[in-house]
Parts: sequence; C-alpha cells; structure tokens
Amino acid sequence: MSEDDPHRHKWFHDHLTPDLVLLHSIREVTYSGRSPFQSIDIIDTNSFGACLVLDGKIQSSEHDEFIYHEALVHPVMLSHSAPEKVLIAGGGEGATLREVLAHRSVKKVTMVDLDREVVDICRRFLPSLHQNSFDDPRLELHFADARGFLERNKEGFDVILLDLPDPIAGGPARLLYTREFYRLVRQRLDPGGIMSVQAEPASWHDLQEFAAIANTLRSVFPVVRAYRTHIPSFASMWGFITASARLDPAALAPDEIDHRVATRLSREPRSYDGHTHLAMFSIPKHIRQRMAATERVSTDQDPISAY
Amino acid sequence: MSEDDPHRHKWFHDHLTPDLVLLHSIREVTYSGRSPFQSIDIIDTNSFGACLVLDGKIQSSEHDEFIYHEALVHPVMLSHSAPEKVLIAGGGEGATLREVLAHRSVKKVTMVDLDREVVDICRRFLPSLHQNSFDDPRLELHFADARGFLERNKEGFDVILLDLPDPIAGGPARLLYTREFYRLVRQRLDPGGIMSVQAEPASWHDLQEFAAIANTLRSVFPVVRAYRTHIPSFASMWGFITASARLDPAALAPDEIDHRVATRLSREPRSYDGHTHLAMFSIPKHIRQRMAATERVSTDQDPISAY
Amino acid sequence: MSEDDPHRHKWFHDHLTPDLVLLHSIREVTYSGRSPFQSIDIIDTNSFGACLVLDGKIQSSEHDEFIYHEALVHPVMLSHSAPEKVLIAGGGEGATLREVLAHRSVKKVTMVDLDREVVDICRRFLPSLHQNSFDDPRLELHFADARGFLERNKEGFDVILLDLPDPIAGGPARLLYTREFYRLVRQRLDPGGIMSVQAEPASWHDLQEFAAIANTLRSVFPVVRAYRTHIPSFASMWGFITASARLDPAALAPDEIDHRVATRLSREPRSYDGHTHLAMFSIPKHIRQRMAATERVSTDQDPISAY
Amino acid sequence: MSEDDPHRHKWFHDHLTPDLVLLHSIREVTYSGRSPFQSIDIIDTNSFGACLVLDGKIQSSEHDEFIYHEALVHPVMLSHSAPEKVLIAGGGEGATLREVLAHRSVKKVTMVDLDREVVDICRRFLPSLHQNSFDDPRLELHFADARGFLERNKEGFDVILLDLPDPIAGGPARLLYTREFYRLVRQRLDPGGIMSVQAEPASWHDLQEFAAIANTLRSVFPVVRAYRTHIPSFASMWGFITASARLDPAALAPDEIDHRVATRLSREPRSYDGHTHLAMFSIPKHIRQRMAATERVSTDQDPISAY
Repeated sequence: MSEDDPHRHKWFHDHLTPDLVLLHSIREVTYSGRSPFQSIDIIDTNSFGACLVLDGKIQSSEHDEFIYHEALVHPVMLSHSAPEKVLIAGGGEGATLREVLAHRSVKKVTMVDLDREVVDICRRFLPSLHQNSFDDPRLELHFADARGFLERNKEGFDVILLDLPDPIAGGPARLLYTREFYRLVRQRLDPGGIMSVQAEPASWHDLQEFAAIANTLRSVFPVVRAYRTHIPSFASMWGFITASARLDPAALAPDEIDHRVATRLSREPRSYDGHTHLAMFSIPKHIRQRMAATERVSTDQDPISAY
Repeated sequence: MSEDDPHRHKWFHDHLTPDLVLLHSIREVTYSGRSPFQSIDIIDTNSFGACLVLDGKIQSSEHDEFIYHEALVHPVMLSHSAPEKVLIAGGGEGATLREVLAHRSVKKVTMVDLDREVVDICRRFLPSLHQNSFDDPRLELHFADARGFLERNKEGFDVILLDLPDPIAGGPARLLYTREFYRLVRQRLDPGGIMSVQAEPASWHDLQEFAAIANTLRSVFPVVRAYRTHIPSFASMWGFITASARLDPAALAPDEIDHRVATRLSREPRSYDGHTHLAMFSIPKHIRQRMAATERVSTDQDPISAY
Repeated sequence: MSEDDPHRHKWFHDHLTPDLVLLHSIREVTYSGRSPFQSIDIIDTNSFGACLVLDGKIQSSEHDEFIYHEALVHPVMLSHSAPEKVLIAGGGEGATLREVLAHRSVKKVTMVDLDREVVDICRRFLPSLHQNSFDDPRLELHFADARGFLERNKEGFDVILLDLPDPIAGGPARLLYTREFYRLVRQRLDPGGIMSVQAEPASWHDLQEFAAIANTLRSVFPVVRAYRTHIPSFASMWGFITASARLDPAALAPDEIDHRVATRLSREPRSYDGHTHLAMFSIPKHIRQRMAATERVSTDQDPISAY
Repeated sequence: MSEDDPHRHKWFHDHLTPDLVLLHSIREVTYSGRSPFQSIDIIDTNSFGACLVLDGKIQSSEHDEFIYHEALVHPVMLSHSAPEKVLIAGGGEGATLREVLAHRSVKKVTMVDLDREVVDICRRFLPSLHQNSFDDPRLELHFADARGFLERNKEGFDVILLDLPDPIAGGPARLLYTREFYRLVRQRLDPGGIMSVQAEPASWHDLQEFAAIANTLRSVFPVVRAYRTHIPSFASMWGFITASARLDPAALAPDEIDHRVATRLSREPRSYDGHTHLAMFSIPKHIRQRMAATERVSTDQDPISAY
C-alpha cells in the first residue's frame, strides 16, 4: 500500500520545523472551523486516530495522548503529599483534567481555558479524551486568559499544571512562558506546592525552547526538573518541567512511585509507573550538555517563540 | 502566504502519474465515504471550490467543470440536426445532464450510472453542478452498469455521451473503453446518430490512453474526431472523441456553430462557441504525430488501463 | 509503482500558487548553486528529463521545451518578411537562440542575459537545449540587465524576443514587464518590426498576469495578439503575446504558415506548423472574456508580480 | 521561511509507514547511484546534514549518527570484560567501526559488508562518519553476505555487532533477522561473548519488528535485553537488543559504566555515559506491556519484514 492508494489521498501536513514536514494520512476530517482565537480541526488520522489540531498543529491524538497527559500530571501530583486544590491552565481536551481527577486527594480543580469553542468541540468529538470529566462536580471551569485569571484570582493551589499551546509569535499563549508569568504562578502556589509545564520539543535537533523554559523557571524557582517522553504523533521527544520551592520529583525512587500510584490513584495509569518515571527523568548526556549551555531566559520583553 | 500557513495544513494529493503529484490545499472536507463501488469524497479546495473525488481522483470541480461538460456535450449535440433521444452513461454529478437539457430539441434523456450513492451525494452537496436537472421530467434515471443496460435495452438514441470514470485496473469502468463496448454503442445509435466520450489526459507527456481510445473507436466507426481542452483542476489538457457513421463536428465552421448555439440552446454556454470549437479541434503537430503513431486497440481481452 | 518506490524518494516541489503544489519525482540533481542573482538547479526529473530551475521555478525541461521555444520564436519571426537583426532578452538556456538561428534570413542575434552563470551552466549541462548555438558566429552575447542595455544601445532590431524569468517581487525581471520598458522596446524596433514576450500562466484559474501583460502592451503598441500553448512541465497553458506597429500574426492562414516554414527555416520545427499556429491563436470564450475584463496596466510605479 | 522559499524546493520523502511520511528539505544531493544490491544516495539535508540513504531510507545522518552508533556499540563492549575480537556485520559507513576502535582492548575487527560501493561512497563523501577508521591496521574488511561469511568462517568473537539494513521484503538483509541466523551468531560467539543488533523502530505506534526481534533472540539466547534511544533523523525511538549466554548490560550501575568509559575508551563518547545507559535501558510501561504481548518469532520460513 502506498500514497497512491485511494484511501490515502488526503494528508495533514504538520510543519515540525521549516525543514521537516510530517505528513499524516487522513481517514476523515470530522470538524473544521475557526474560533475567535484560532483555527480548530478534528482530524481522524490513519496512524493516530482522532487528533485535535489548533492552528495547524496537533495538540493531542487519541492513540498516544495518554503518554503526554500522564507525563504532565502524575509526577507533580505524586510528588505532593496530598494535593487537594489543582489549577489547570489550558488543557481544553479535558484529558489533563481526567488524569487529575483520578487522584483521590483532589477536592477542587480550577480549569482556565481561553477558548470555549475548543472545549465544546472536544466534548462533542473527543469523548475518549475527556471521558466525561467535565461533568465531575469537583470541576470549576472558566473561559479566560490564564494570566488575567491568576492576576485577579488570589486563591492558592497545591498543584498548577500549564497545558498550554505553543508560544508562537502572535499567538495567545506567548506571554504564558515568561519569567513574569512564572513569578505569578509561584505566588499562587501554596508553600508546599509544585507546578509542571508542557515544554515543547525536547529532541537533539530541536530543544531550544525546552532549554529556555527550563532556564526561565530556574530564574524563579529553587527546584526545577526537566524530563522527557516520546510522543509518536508529535514525531519527537516532548519536554516537561516541574518547578517548586522544595519538592523534587527526580528524587523519588521507582518503588515509592509504584506505591503511591497503587494507593492514591483511583485507576492504574496506562504509561506511568516507577520505571517510566525513571526513564522520563533520565536525560542522555548530549541533551544535558546542550541544555546546560543555554542562557536564554524568556521575558515579557523578549519572549521565546516556537515555529 | 505559504504551506505553513495554518489554513493550508490539509492537502489533497492527486497522483497524476507515478512521477507527478498535484497537491491541492483543502478548505474543508464536506463528505467522505465508500459506496459498494468506490470511495467518494466531496472536498472543498482553495483553488477550485468543491470537487467530487472518486477513488482519489478529481472528477469535477465547481470552478472549471463547465469547460469539461460543455466540451463533452455541445460538439456532438450541435453536429446532429435535432437530437431528441440522448443516452448518458456515467455523469453522476448531473452536469452532463444539465448541458444536454439545455438543448431545446431534447425529448428524453436516459441516464445510466452505476452508483446511486454518487448521484445522491452530488444532488445533496453539489447543487451548482446539477442545477436541479434531476427533477426534469425528460429524465429517465437508471442505476446499472452501462454495458449491461445497453445489452438489455434495445432502444436507439440520437446521441450517446460516455462520461465515465477512468479505466483503472480493477475499476468498474474498465470494460467501457473497449472495441466490444463501442460496437454495442454503435448498435444503439440511430443511423444519423453520434457519440462522444471523455477520453483521459491528452497532454504531450501523457496521452497514450487518449490515443488508444481514438484508435479503438476508429476500428468501429467511419468518422472519428479527437479534440482537447485545458481543464485546470486536472492539471492537463483533456481529451474527448466523437464517433459516428457520417457526422463530422470538425467540419463545422465557427459561424455555423455560433448560429446553432444561438438558435438551439435555451441559454448561452460559458465556454463553448464557434471559436472555442475551432480551438478544441485544432491539435498541434507534435500531438497529432504521436497520436498517429499509436497502434493500440483496447479490447475486452486486453483493455487499456489508466494510472 | 508509487511514491514509496525507492526510486521516488527525492521530489521537486513546484509551488504553482499558494494552494497548488506540483511534485516532480527526481532522478538526479545534476547541479545546485547560487549565482549573484538567483539559485540555479539542474534537476533530472523522471517525467520531463533535465530541467533548468531558477529560484525554485522550472524554466525549461528537456522533454517539452521545444513547445515553448518554438511558440515564442516562430510566430513573430515568420510574420516579419525577412528578419535579419534579432534581439533576445533572457533565454539563457540557448534554446530561443537555437530557434532564431534556424531562420535563414537572420544575420545577427544580440542576446542579453543578466546571469553569466546560468548561461555557463546551461552550456555545460543542457547541450540538447542550446545544440551549440552559442558557437554560431552570428551571435553577439552580452551579460547585462536588458533594460540598461537597451537604454545604452540605440541599435534597431527587426524582432525582439523577451524570454525573461517571472516578474516576482524582489526579482531582477520585475521592471521588464512594465509599460515604460515596453515603450523602450518599441523605440528599438525598426518600423516594420515585431516583438513577442513569454507572458506567464494563461489558464482559467491563473491568468491575471497574462491578461495584465496583454493590456500593458496594448497601451504601447497598435497591434497586440495573445496566444497560448500547453506546456506539460509547467502544468499549465502558457501565455505569449506579440506586439507591433502593424504586423498581425493572427491574420496568417495555416497554408501560408506552412509555406513560410518550408522555405525560410533550415529545419522543420517539432511542434510548430500552420495548424499549430491556428490552435495557439484560438482562445476559448471563457478565457477571452476574462482577459477582456482586465484593466490592469503594469507600470514602473506599480508593476505586476507573479507568485 | 517556508516550503515556498526557493531554498526549500527539493525534498527527501521518507516513508516511515504507509500513513506517515517525513519530508526533509534538501540542501544538495551529493551522490545518487545504484549498486548491484540497492540504490545509494548521499543527501545533504538542512536539518541533519549529510545523510546516507539506501533504498530510500536514511541509514545515518551527520548530525545525530553518534547517538545511534554509540548506543549500538558501547553497552555490549563495556559489558564484556576485555573484548579483543569483534565482528561487525553491515555498518558500511564506518561509524560502528569507529566506535569499536575507540576501545583500547580491541586487537582485531572483522567487518563484513555486502556492498563494496556503499563503503567506497561513504569513505569518499562521509569522512566525519568513518574518521579514517578504514585505515586502522586492526581492521580486516570483507565484502560478502554476513550469513555466508559466518557459515564459512569458524572463528570465534568476543563481540558481534549486527548493524544491518531493514529486513525489507525482497531485500538482502531479510534472512539476517531470523532465529536460524541468530543461532549461527551464537555459535561464533566465544563463551563469554555478547552480541547487539540494531532492531528497527521502537515507538508506541510502530514497534512490532522490535518486539519480534527481541522475542526471536530470546528463543536462542538466555540473556536478552532490549533498549531504545531517540534518533531525530529517523523521527522515532530506535531499538537495540543485546543477547548473550550470561552478560547482562542492564545490570550495570551508572557509576560502573562511567568508570569503564573513563578507563577503557581512548576518547570520551558524545552521548554515552552511565546516565544515558540508564535512560536507554529504562523502558516505559506501555512499551514493556506491548512487547511482552508479542509472540512473533522470525524464522527463515517466515521472516519478519519491515515497511
């Protein structure tokens, strides 16, 4: 079988970099539209099932979103002794929410997404992602810019999860990756709190944003830990970073992780366990060295921008 | 603007030949499905508007289908003195039908299309193509294989129009481009009748099927005339061929064409007139020579097959 | 066979418009480099043989360049009674030169190309195009901007052929498609002289530059004739325009063309004859109407720009 | 910058699966040809520098080949107490050889590659990969099928490295991934010996060959360890597997690895150290589970085949 197969005449072109384009064959385009903030597509691909695509970039795919969402949520949630109040910025698919709600200690989740249409469309077309999490009574859902929301709302949180779109030039998320924003996040974390952030590609040939976000967080938080996992639909290793005053997920032993998973989660994760945790926080030498060499700090004046 | 524009991340790949692929940016995929006979898509492209796509090949586009359908229909219809009974084989979009019905002399159109789903989907999604022609009382619509239909139905016709999909290997239309089938068509033409056939790409680098169809028709009919016009959405010159016992469209003068258009059609064509007729039947030397060199005849035993 | 065939893993992407991209499979990249003026590639394609590519656009392909060059040269050369002095602006491949030199009346050809590297590379890698025409003693070759050359050089010519690259924004040829430049060309034509110009795509979906060039020439010359032919490697009908004080190629009868070809050319063209001439100058109604509606004139202040 | 940039009109299409195609923009095609065994290209890409491409698949890229070759070589070499005799099957670029020769204990390297042309072309065009390793007096180079060579040559080895092309249907390497071949490899390993094999993509969506190779090796060797690392130019996690009678690389502690690297290698690796080793041998849960579920064994009768 090949591209000239009649089933393979529609393709999604994902421009990973100016010099690398990944083509996904399309089974069906389920939805296409524009909100006031971005273009929104639900594309059913032959490789990864239904995908949420915002402004031409895959945000989540049915087949491998669990790897991403478990990686974003569980390391910080299990590093905290008993997270009750959780903030999610972004995460319109509802899958970050789904993973947070699996933690028994959670009493309230405040979710702030800019774009009501993304949430509406995901609720309608991607039920396997949210799994009805939007109906959970612990959820308080706001449609607002996360930065404005955190400035107005003085509430404190145990865990803050930044599940935001790429900081593209001209995009709405660009000022949500700066030192000034991270300072605001730190103010809203309770003393024993911890945050994590999706932190862009973390591959050897494409890790400048990942390194810059880590560096920026280090200018705000005492304990910062970068980790990575492979997300096939992004065709890349993907970066995540935790930041806190004193909690260190990298110091947790695999056995302790397995124990916490078994006792504190209402269901078993598909990807995350003690060994997976170890794999994610183990960064190969060539990546460590290149990250250590980065001096870039993202600021409101001079924010990073993804391709 | 460029391919990395967020509006240009969905593309239709049209494999023209194994070595040439034309990519159309997609505005929206309106419909995707499979009938028992073929895959069917309605794709709204940025260049050519809504397109009917069968088995991955564009059949008609909103923006330029008039060029194709007027070319297929009017030269033979106006060569005949007063066509009353017309048969259309294929033509599920209803646009060939639309052009036939514009001829005031027509009393009955028998249309035979294999695939009811194609007709249903075109009626629903491509109103600008059929323009409600399916509601005309002169139409008698059959869903059947055209060859079987003509074998069973002994009726005679003034004009027969073969508006069939490509003769691809394994496809349902392959035995509708053979000498045996053309003999059957000749039997169903009344003595003064004439047929025309859509006859595949007719470009310098890709005209073997066109030449073979002309040659095959010459083995059955005394008067055979090949002509071409440029269809932008096919990225090619497109071939058509007339065949009859004695009617010769190429012998009609532009003025005579213009007179017949003015008196016999209920509305003015967008593309077709005397000068367009002259342009279509004027074949450049290098094309004439290559066609004249062809000895291929398509038979049931050894039918041609398009890519 | 298909794109995943190991022989089809290198592709040339020709961006015809922002919404249409034609992919040519590459057999071999023979040369890649940059001159002071543009990027230059010689790409051997599976469909069209060796192609000259400037700034990412195919200029000529081995398999079908004869269609283009014969169309540019012979209609004006044969309209003139006995052209002796010919100017070629552009035409670095040497194929326009080759066709001009086939006219027995020619005594001197002045060729002005901006880019010495293009000529050197074509001489080396595309011998079938120039066929050693650069060695003809009738040739006088200058490397200069055609406009500056014509301003300085007050010589008169019987025929002027403008075989220039696309008027892309920022490109060196942009001011060679304006009213001011055409006035200069007219000053350099002897009283009975005639010019022709390659005039960009001339297809239904893409003919605004063609129409504007015709309109611009009409603001300078009394007799202007647009014509077209299909160039497969450009995936389009291609436009050409003649302009003169009184010579009208469209008025020549096919028989007269055939007579002049037989008596005035030293060898038979591959594509051009009386019937081909008729085909080229016959413009279908929908194209005529759209061209007639154009009011755009290209000027130094507001030049046209191709994609 | 975008695909329509004139510098980005040549693209290498890497068909990762039937539904995923990765496009690399090409700076230059340095070499294209065919040996008796395969098509060979040296393509200079904008993302990864010069790449060796066999039968349309990237084998090694200048920018990230060190990740692959260090991963293939060092874990097994450092698991052995003092490897003196090493066999490399495949590895025509000379980079596996380069890494082997960095081990001070090595006295003799026997390298068996099928295709003399691949070696010649890599020596000429990819000096940064082999770094003149082919001139090392410890090398004994044979051009032969590895299986036939091992059948004829009864010599024993401390380490055997299988750096072979994909087991594609009809390709020359297909029978070098079977149980029968691995039995032969085991016979040629000295009692304390160990082998490693490049083992195809090891990503969540594409790991069936990786799992099958691991399973096949388990049917022959007592100790089998699968590991992975991310190779950006392959757009995938890449699998490797060690197999031996008793040596277990996964049991080595990071500190012990760092000690052996420091004392036994003549230069520091760019990617490999104790922590990288840990990262490579840590397999996330969802991958472990899918691999454990595999029952496929590759045999001469029924060998696996890669896309």
